Amino acid sequence: MDTIQLKTEKVKSYIAPKELEFMNKKIIDFHNKMSNRTSLGHEYLGWLDYPIQYDEHDLAYTLEVAKEIKENAQLLIVIGIGGSYLGTRAIQDALQPYFHTSSDTPKVIFAGQNLSGRYMKQLLHYIEDKEVYINVISKSGTTTEPAIAFRILRQQLEKKYGQDAHKHIIVTTDQEKGVLRQLAEKNHYRTFNIPNDIGGRYSVFTPVGLLPLAAQGIDIKSFLQGAKEAAEKLVGNNLVENPAYEYAAIRQLLLLKGYQIEILASFEPALSHLQGWWQQLFGESEGKQHNGLFPVALSFSTDLHSLGQYIQQGKRTIFETFLSFRHVDEDCQVPYSDDNTDQLNFLCDKSLNTINSIASVGTTNAHEAGGIPVLSIEIGRLDEYHLGYMMYFFMKACAMSAYLQGVNPFDQPGVEAYKQEMVRLLGKFDVVKN
Amino acid sequence: MDTIQLKTEKVKSYIAPKELEFMNKKIIDFHNKMSNRTSLGHEYLGWLDYPIQYDEHDLAYTLEVAKEIKENAQLLIVIGIGGSYLGTRAIQDALQPYFHTSSDTPKVIFAGQNLSGRYMKQLLHYIEDKEVYINVISKSGTTTEPAIAFRILRQQLEKKYGQDAHKHIIVTTDQEKGVLRQLAEKNHYRTFNIPNDIGGRYSVFTPVGLLPLAAQGIDIKSFLQGAKEAAEKLVGNNLVENPAYEYAAIRQLLLLKGYQIEILASFEPALSHLQGWWQQLFGESEGKQHNGLFPVALSFSTDLHSLGQYIQQGKRTIFETFLSFRHVDEDCQVPYSDDNTDQLNFLCDKSLNTINSIASVGTTNAHEAGGIPVLSIEIGRLDEYHLGYMMYFFMKACAMSAYLQGVNPFDQPGVEAYKQEMVRLLGKFDVVKN
Repeated sequence: MDTIQLKTEKVKSYIAPKELEFMNKKIIDFHNKMSNRTSLGHEYLGWLDYPIQYDEHDLAYTLEVAKEIKENAQLLIVIGIGGSYLGTRAIQDALQPYFHTSSDTPKVIFAGQNLSGRYMKQLLHYIEDKEVYINVISKSGTTTEPAIAFRILRQQLEKKYGQDAHKHIIVTTDQEKGVLRQLAEKNHYRTFNIPNDIGGRYSVFTPVGLLPLAAQGIDIKSFLQGAKEAAEKLVGNNLVENPAYEYAAIRQLLLLKGYQIEILASFEPALSHLQGWWQQLFGESEGKQHNGLFPVALSFSTDLHSLGQYIQQGKRTIFETFLSFRHVDEDCQVPYSDDNTDQLNFLCDKSLNTINSIASVGTTNAHEAGGIPVLSIEIGRLDEYHLGYMMYFFMKACAMSAYLQGVNPFDQPGVEAYKQEMVRLLGKFDVVKN
Repeated sequence: MDTIQLKTEKVKSYIAPKELEFMNKKIIDFHNKMSNRTSLGHEYLGWLDYPIQYDEHDLAYTLEVAKEIKENAQLLIVIGIGGSYLGTRAIQDALQPYFHTSSDTPKVIFAGQNLSGRYMKQLLHYIEDKEVYINVISKSGTTTEPAIAFRILRQQLEKKYGQDAHKHIIVTTDQEKGVLRQLAEKNHYRTFNIPNDIGGRYSVFTPVGLLPLAAQGIDIKSFLQGAKEAAEKLVGNNLVENPAYEYAAIRQLLLLKGYQIEILASFEPALSHLQGWWQQLFGESEGKQHNGLFPVALSFSTDLHSLGQYIQQGKRTIFETFLSFRHVDEDCQVPYSDDNTDQLNFLCDKSLNTINSIASVGTTNAHEAGGIPVLSIEIGRLDEYHLGYMMYFFMKACAMSAYLQGVNPFDQPGVEAYKQEMVRLLGKFDVVKN
């Protein structure tokens, strides 16, 4: 059984074979250009081979620092925004328990992803009586949100640990340039490098993701192994041999047909932040030139009682991709009840995960009958290996999908607009009254 | 200063005065029909006057039971899905601390909103060593997800508390009918009534929301007072005098012009679940007859580094409504740094909330310049009173908006589709292989 299975039979009635052939020619061409490093934005294709070629010494050092954090910290604060933390959040939420207890240390929390004074004030209070490490992650070090959070939290750790504060601060940044690199050298912080040829949303397999994940006891070797096998297997140059390219082709054909929204849906709530990572990956890679699918992440059954009505009967410009596992380790039976007032005894032979997978099939059928094209991606298990494989699958699919759309998968010129306007306003403060 | 200010000047360049006049005639007509209880779905208009007419004895009993839970429980499990818990989650997340500590009891967690065996198994383990109350909320008692969760958790409490289990279980359901009512009578559970004339997504001011909120120490009298004042003030029969109707008119005009997605954005992360409540309110009320705006909730700056690129440069079929507060209590300064390596000393005279509101203005300007129609809703403070006012504002706006679109604001026929298909499949289990 393949690690990932892309099921496209239900969407094929929306797509003509000729259309797939048309896309396949483009795919073969873009695949060659990616392989030759001649495609648009090719200077950011480092993620393609990274899981195969990473440095064993770097990995050993990552594990060493992670072990130290694990042994000494009750709390690891990851300071970062966008690609600097979404991959970490995705994997930790997929694998860590739903209900955190104080024995599950270190707990990882995030900062620098918002500018709320309320959030920061409460965070400062929360860390007062705890052993804390910081991992600040930013390529340039100049993005306003994490830069402010790092200044505030760094000074707090200096108050708390005095001369030893630098031992609690780990910097993940550009290997040579930038403000964070300067701060690290001046203050003797330990550092990890973000490779020059890998952008934020493709960086989860670098120290950006690996250090905070390993510090929580997540098996990053298996995670990398999954990505490595994906990198070795998803090498077909066409959509018949490469499911990542088939997914890309179908998305782009549906976009050409006027579909505007892709919903990535899962029935396992642990995946909701992984779906959030997918949302950034595709939204930031493709939302360009007044085009692109708007990516939406939904968690079912929860959101069936929120946006389910819209999906079933709203505008017909949505398609859905269902994400599911063939096996989830932990499960629970429906117990027998003598009086059966709630009339659920007919479910007593079934486990919750079984009922959940039946809900998934039922929802797929209902939405399909309502006129929604439905794709499905099935993964073997909920574990590090399979999540690594899946994330690489999505990265490769996303790059090809953006190329098919005619845009650079690796830039984000639109993100600068709000940054520049904010910095302009911060410079001349008097224009804003409070 | 009004409790809520709707700012529409930036969107007016997209809308002609004649178009607003056209909508206003319809508004006056639908307002009269709502007042006379002759509009579509009028049998579910109970929420209109509920905050003015609620029973003082019921409220006193709610506070009494809440006090008992507060004093005795470490954990309150709210079992419900959709409108049965989204309002509670919205308000508790807006007002409770970002970082929960064990002294903040009772902690409220949710069940019955998913079918994950992993979630339930871990929940059963988590509650083992804790004092637990359950509040199960369902009008019919037959929705599969909460019904299963209640059976499992009920039996767990019977093991834990024996003869006293019934004292730990509180049922919020229909006043006469249904499985939950039967279970409550048989087992002597205490009960609260869901009024017949109020549907799930309009029920936050009834015991559905009030009991679990009060049990956490949230001031439900202020919350109700906010709703009451909104009910008394938002009575104008036209869009000039009633900002709820102006919001409804602008939304529907943008829908008619081809806009497909409304983003509700906030720079205060505490609001993200309140935005989730808004998403259900509008999505489930309007996503009908292959029409309606697709509602999306985003938290900034976080999501500016995820979907910000798409908003700035993707398809131009999005408009945005910004939600903000004039005042948030807790705040934090940017500290001075001697060496200023990170070059942030120019911000030292500003607090984070000030910088955050400048980020909000900057983002509004940038998105507007990128071709996004922008609305803004400004609320006085982040507290119970203002949140109550705001939720009522949205409920009234949503009812009118759905009427203007020509659909019933109070039904959800499409939600049945997946339920029926799931139940059909559960009945004949053999069609699904695992």
